[in-house]
Amino acid sequence: MSVFFYGCVTLDGYLADKNHRLDWLHETGGTEDTGYEDFYRKMDITLMGRRTFREIQGMENPEEIYPTTVNYVFTHGTLEQKGFLPVTGDAEDFVRNLPKEKNVWVIGGNTILAPLLDAGLIDGMIVQIAPVLLGAGIPLFTQKEAAMRFHLDKVSQYGQFAELAYSRK
Amino acid sequence: MSVFFYGCVTLDGYLADKNHRLDWLHETGGTEDTGYEDFYRKMDITLMGRRTFREIQGMENPEEIYPTTVNYVFTHGTLEQKGFLPVTGDAEDFVRNLPKEKNVWVIGGNTILAPLLDAGLIDGMIVQIAPVLLGAGIPLFTQKEAAMRFHLDKVSQYGQFAELAYSRK
Repeated sequence: MSVFFYGCVTLDGYLADKNHRLDWLHETGGTEDTGYEDFYRKMDITLMGRRTFREIQGMENPEEIYPTTVNYVFTHGTLEQKGFLPVTGDAEDFVRNLPKEKNVWVIGGNTILAPLLDAGLIDGMIVQIAPVLLGAGIPLFTQKEAAMRFHLDKVSQYGQFAELAYSRK
Repeated sequence: MSVFFYGCVTLDGYLADKNHRLDWLHETGGTEDTGYEDFYRKMDITLMGRRTFREIQGMENPEEIYPTTVNYVFTHGTLEQKGFLPVTGDAEDFVRNLPKEKNVWVIGGNTILAPLLDAGLIDGMIVQIAPVLLGAGIPLFTQKEAAMRFHLDKVSQYGQFAELAYSRK
């Protein structure tokens, strides 16, 4: 099993603004030519937190956004959304009990990524950096203090996004 | 006058660890082929804080590190170091009173960069990202909450460093 983070942050490291909004991201503009389709095709499972799920649920046809993966949402509530499964408990334990041959995409947020980083369970990170500073918001990286080294595999530019691809060292 | 930041951070946005040390940076290894020489040649003035100066002073032959620029250190003390001038006061006011045709490099730290970002005085940023997470330390970006957009000019890879070059939008 390999576990990946793939997602976008501001240059100052925020996943979202203080109100969990992504206006800064939408204003950066899109780009048709990204590696997203290739990445997504390789994934079997997605993991996300409740707030990330709420963002997705607010989009048009949420059930079509991650159509080929099994999509798990860490929540204590119910979801009432086709295509998404509610799960509870510890992200680390959950990931350790997934089938070994699967590829897992940690979509967000930081409360899922941090314990997996702490446990040494993140095998790859593909981070798109938007050319924006926010000065406050929800940080991507909230893992514990520890020097963790990755290997920089590749840097790319997609429109106004810089993409950095890392694998575990 | 144009004011630039040029410097290195961890993937989680730290300039230095909690003890203001740069071990993580030295362990990333060097690379001979960077744009540093070209960048430095264009600069007339450097600005730095007291802690950044102390790092430089701890190196061999500190007076030879920035040999062609006028080098200002924000400090309330004295420096006793050839090639560096102590200055006091507000970074924003200081920069506004520099000669208009000069190029200024803000070396660090965040206490110099933040007020210049807040004042809209940063024209360009060249950020090298080391493939390291620290989880704690001295953050590069500590400016006030405000959405500030830059233009991504270029992404490059130098060894294990990703370099992102931005200009003011």
